[in-house]
Amino acid sequence: MRSIARQLYGEVAGLQIISPHGHTDPEWFATNEPFGNATELLLHPDHYLFRMLYSQGISLDALGIAGRDADPRESWRILAENYYLFRGTPSRMWLDWVFAEAFGIDVRLDGSTADFYFDTITEALQTDAFRPRALFDRYGLEVLATTESPIDTLSHHKAIRESGWNGRVITAYRPDPVVDPDFEGFAQNLATFADLTGEDTQSWSGYLAAHRKRRAFFAKMGATSTDHGHPTATTANLSASEAAALFDRVKSGNASSQDAELFRGQMLTEMAAMSLDDGLVMQIHPGSFRNHNRWLFENFGRDKGADIPTRTDYVHALQPLLDRFGNEADLSIILFTLDESSYARELAPLAGHYPCLKLGPAWWFHDSPEGMRRFRLMTTETAGFYNTVGFNDDTRAFLSIPARHDVARRIDCGFLAQLVAEHRIEDWEAAEVAQDLAYNLVKKAYRL
Amino acid sequence: MRSIARQLYGEVAGLQIISPHGHTDPEWFATNEPFGNATELLLHPDHYLFRMLYSQGISLDALGIAGRDADPRESWRILAENYYLFRGTPSRMWLDWVFAEAFGIDVRLDGSTADFYFDTITEALQTDAFRPRALFDRYGLEVLATTESPIDTLSHHKAIRESGWNGRVITAYRPDPVVDPDFEGFAQNLATFADLTGEDTQSWSGYLAAHRKRRAFFAKMGATSTDHGHPTATTANLSASEAAALFDRVKSGNASSQDAELFRGQMLTEMAAMSLDDGLVMQIHPGSFRNHNRWLFENFGRDKGADIPTRTDYVHALQPLLDRFGNEADLSIILFTLDESSYARELAPLAGHYPCLKLGPAWWFHDSPEGMRRFRLMTTETAGFYNTVGFNDDTRAFLSIPARHDVARRIDCGFLAQLVAEHRIEDWEAAEVAQDLAYNLVKKAYRL
Amino acid sequence: MRSIARQLYGEVAGLQIISPHGHTDPEWFATNEPFGNATELLLHPDHYLFRMLYSQGISLDALGIAGRDADPRESWRILAENYYLFRGTPSRMWLDWVFAEAFGIDVRLDGSTADFYFDTITEALQTDAFRPRALFDRYGLEVLATTESPIDTLSHHKAIRESGWNGRVITAYRPDPVVDPDFEGFAQNLATFADLTGEDTQSWSGYLAAHRKRRAFFAKMGATSTDHGHPTATTANLSASEAAALFDRVKSGNASSQDAELFRGQMLTEMAAMSLDDGLVMQIHPGSFRNHNRWLFENFGRDKGADIPTRTDYVHALQPLLDRFGNEADLSIILFTLDESSYARELAPLAGHYPCLKLGPAWWFHDSPEGMRRFRLMTTETAGFYNTVGFNDDTRAFLSIPARHDVARRIDCGFLAQLVAEHRIEDWEAAEVAQDLAYNLVKKAYRL
Repeated sequence: MRSIARQLYGEVAGLQIISPHGHTDPEWFATNEPFGNATELLLHPDHYLFRMLYSQGISLDALGIAGRDADPRESWRILAENYYLFRGTPSRMWLDWVFAEAFGIDVRLDGSTADFYFDTITEALQTDAFRPRALFDRYGLEVLATTESPIDTLSHHKAIRESGWNGRVITAYRPDPVVDPDFEGFAQNLATFADLTGEDTQSWSGYLAAHRKRRAFFAKMGATSTDHGHPTATTANLSASEAAALFDRVKSGNASSQDAELFRGQMLTEMAAMSLDDGLVMQIHPGSFRNHNRWLFENFGRDKGADIPTRTDYVHALQPLLDRFGNEADLSIILFTLDESSYARELAPLAGHYPCLKLGPAWWFHDSPEGMRRFRLMTTETAGFYNTVGFNDDTRAFLSIPARHDVARRIDCGFLAQLVAEHRIEDWEAAEVAQDLAYNLVKKAYRL
Repeated sequence: MRSIARQLYGEVAGLQIISPHGHTDPEWFATNEPFGNATELLLHPDHYLFRMLYSQGISLDALGIAGRDADPRESWRILAENYYLFRGTPSRMWLDWVFAEAFGIDVRLDGSTADFYFDTITEALQTDAFRPRALFDRYGLEVLATTESPIDTLSHHKAIRESGWNGRVITAYRPDPVVDPDFEGFAQNLATFADLTGEDTQSWSGYLAAHRKRRAFFAKMGATSTDHGHPTATTANLSASEAAALFDRVKSGNASSQDAELFRGQMLTEMAAMSLDDGLVMQIHPGSFRNHNRWLFENFGRDKGADIPTRTDYVHALQPLLDRFGNEADLSIILFTLDESSYARELAPLAGHYPCLKLGPAWWFHDSPEGMRRFRLMTTETAGFYNTVGFNDDTRAFLSIPARHDVARRIDCGFLAQLVAEHRIEDWEAAEVAQDLAYNLVKKAYRL
Repeated sequence: MRSIARQLYGEVAGLQIISPHGHTDPEWFATNEPFGNATELLLHPDHYLFRMLYSQGISLDALGIAGRDADPRESWRILAENYYLFRGTPSRMWLDWVFAEAFGIDVRLDGSTADFYFDTITEALQTDAFRPRALFDRYGLEVLATTESPIDTLSHHKAIRESGWNGRVITAYRPDPVVDPDFEGFAQNLATFADLTGEDTQSWSGYLAAHRKRRAFFAKMGATSTDHGHPTATTANLSASEAAALFDRVKSGNASSQDAELFRGQMLTEMAAMSLDDGLVMQIHPGSFRNHNRWLFENFGRDKGADIPTRTDYVHALQPLLDRFGNEADLSIILFTLDESSYARELAPLAGHYPCLKLGPAWWFHDSPEGMRRFRLMTTETAGFYNTVGFNDDTRAFLSIPARHDVARRIDCGFLAQLVAEHRIEDWEAAEVAQDLAYNLVKKAYRL
């Protein structure tokens, strides 16, 4: 089985990387400035790392998170001394890959080698070979999508396109800041949204028109998808007048929690309607309880490793949207989950029936060898491979992109090898599927 | 481990098949008419197949589903061209088994071999060796249970019994059409129920008497079990007067959803009471959200691949029934689930304690190698093997019966082989359990 | 992989056993009287055994459970004749270990060897080598914690400490009988609590003071932890006046179910506050629906194998407590679950972020090879090894302690071996982790 897996992997290991969803910073590619040091490159953007350190009583101040003033070398030493904490985690695999493949280091990271690592990496970063665009090329990125809000000007993407560089860095439309009444600054965001679009975002029709305009602008800047990070998968299918009345209640940002939830749900259905028109693929990333740690949120802000998954229903939640658009083969909605109990029970059966639905890969906490195996083991029986969409790295940590794609390709090949060994598919079929999972499906699903 | 598994499998591969629960059509065995063609035999009754095709944008019209007019050969070609979609699914295993074992075909199904397959299979079907009764014998079916509603006349079963053929095709009592107030035509069904039984099904006592009579008739026609396909596992334990008042509210078919749910729950308890009297084994198949796709239901009807599992509670839901009958060792209730998160958490602990409870095998979406492994991995630790009941194929697709039993036997032997390899049981014990899982347990549990 | 696992296991197999949480009887060690016979030692305290027998229709009377008068030899014969029921269960592994390792028996237990087993074991028990303290030493128990209620006088622990024996048997503070308004005799328990502490347990402040005093007494008797067995993981964070008003409503034991739930939740937060002061580690064991079988409870009492796990939320339930204490690195709360769907979704993300949280091992129904593997497979990716706390046997059956620790060490080594084989960690790291999981982590986490 291992030799079948190795052979399958050998044929896909070198394929170009398509990264259709993630959170890297477009400024890196716009300015192509070198990364400053090891800590800035590898620790600061990676909440997988500092959440683990924090769980063991290490303060975020000492790590220089959220702009806290800390000596980067000292922060790096803390990571190094505590690197044993990551045994068995995917972070360990990704970092080991980066250390060996990107920086050619062949000693183990621990307290005694911390400075050697810091210096080696930091020095390399000052060379042209480690500037963002060079790394983009070196790792064979065919497409890299970032994620921006409708009130982002996309100035970095504009700069990239005007720079003459031929790397394909595109954006994705993530409207949460103007769709989620509970988002920080929602009312102000609506005002900015009006300024950017020239639409009256205080009226329901103007608000929808602003979305349409902004989606068109994002599409012009390369976007092929939208992305929606809601607390639940709730959708709604209100009449136009009900929706307008609801919008009137929520536009101040002081909506009741029921109204806020209903509005988010209605907006998923509105976004689906717009996707039918403009062809943008919808991604739904539900089920994260954001900013669970109140003190941390107040002191360090969002995205600091304190988001916790919650139990997530899809069967009832998606029905309003599916009642309206479920049978549209031209619509493409990619579902993600942080609740693996829904894989076999809800998601595979839904995606294995509705023409508009596909399944995104194992996400976030489950983007690990074990999580990816569970994903295949629990979805393939009902949805097959062809209702899935290949791999997403979904990362803020640039160099973990090739590392993550490499792990994903290995795991998928291992899964396929088992099917071959059990005489369930033939070896040439496995090779075809391996290629599809690594490259073709993502390209097709994201319309790239 | 593989060699242990192979040896175990070798000893059970040839055992007779007992199929205690499924949805094949008794008319096949009553008339013994040949199946018409490949599409009619293999595609039309198999919602696993057309749901997958539909999920990829293929119309059910083109497949000739629900009596739609389509050229069977053209429909078959669509299946053939899209056969790659089933890689990794159990459907692929079952069909491959059927193609090779039943029809002796040794080329792969794809667009280029579609016509060859269609012709080979269709021609074989015109021979006597492929008539329903011949296939029944060829595959060693010792018992085959179909599932009928109380308002079915069982004319086909009568014809089978009077035909002189010695194949044992029996029925099972599935009262959903007269128990579930949300069932299509519920009020009319009650009227038919009255006609068939001579009881006043508008009164609670008459309604219960009608069930008793009809159960006795089903038992006379071979039934040893009842079957209940409710949206949830809710049971209730109302007083007789409360139950009568509830029945008065629901008998029109216009019950509130709470009343409908409560009535279904009360009827499970009533059915348990009757089972204590007449010895019919109860099967509870809860947790499917039926007809999730409204448009499809309105245009193609039920059982068209649009049923989606839902999260299902057993611990609270079953308590009313268990409070009344849980300690009755003479009562036998077989529980199924579409929510695998309940295996280790609820179902194995319940079946590993209550004398009246047993666990049905991995069901429907989970009737796959992966699903069967999960079933054993998550139930054996607490319920052991002897609170389970062997295998159910639960299919509408006749030839998938031997294929499914074959897969189940292989997977169980693989699981047992691992226990032997880990020195947890001895080889002779594994052989005994393999035989029990393949043959003895189902016979005993279903009182066959 | 097997040879790596064997090597890892070889290095930890002989380590001392730390049993930080369980339900053995301290009287055994206080009096050091011999166990009476095989049935009394192995069957009567082990609800894993008699629940399985009961599920197959065997009466608890015949087994002599709950003090029922039954011939121990006859009860043993029933176990022996039905020993095949345990194939594939952990009970089988534990008993096989005990039979072979403790009693040197090398024939299989079944009906024909029942008397031989009974006599061999019973005779051995009469020898000094099988008295409780001798067994404690023989199996290398470094620490054994029992669990007592605040209204227990701890007389046996006192006797142990005064006996001059150097075995470390300590208690743990399990306040459910005076914290859970639904506990049998709650109001009477409060009165006893007052008698033992001299505090006015009818006032909120006196009630809290009684807890503080009693915790201090338990700590003096060796306790390093508290334990909380609530139906859910609900916590609350009421103001002092709200809490006092709530206490007034519940102190009679006639609280509404909402008040009872809120009170239990508030008390978890109060216990956390006290833990910050006195350093006792908190264990939360939520999610068991106790005494599900009403008839059995009324006739045989609690802890008779009729507790059933329920779906358990942690993300919302723990937030009030975490809002107040989540970022306290000096507080240590060990979370357990009977709902494995929470491992990857909720527990690992919570423990992988909050400094005060750690994960207890696979518990109760899931204390099996399969359950332990699931625990590691679903928690390591996010929480790593170092937010877990080693193994707990949590048993009432004394001799299953070394058996259970042995199984746990084997399974963890098997899991580590796979990481080594997949080149995810090095062999010396695996050896370090194996030692940590078997010995160091539990010592540190329980402050022993």
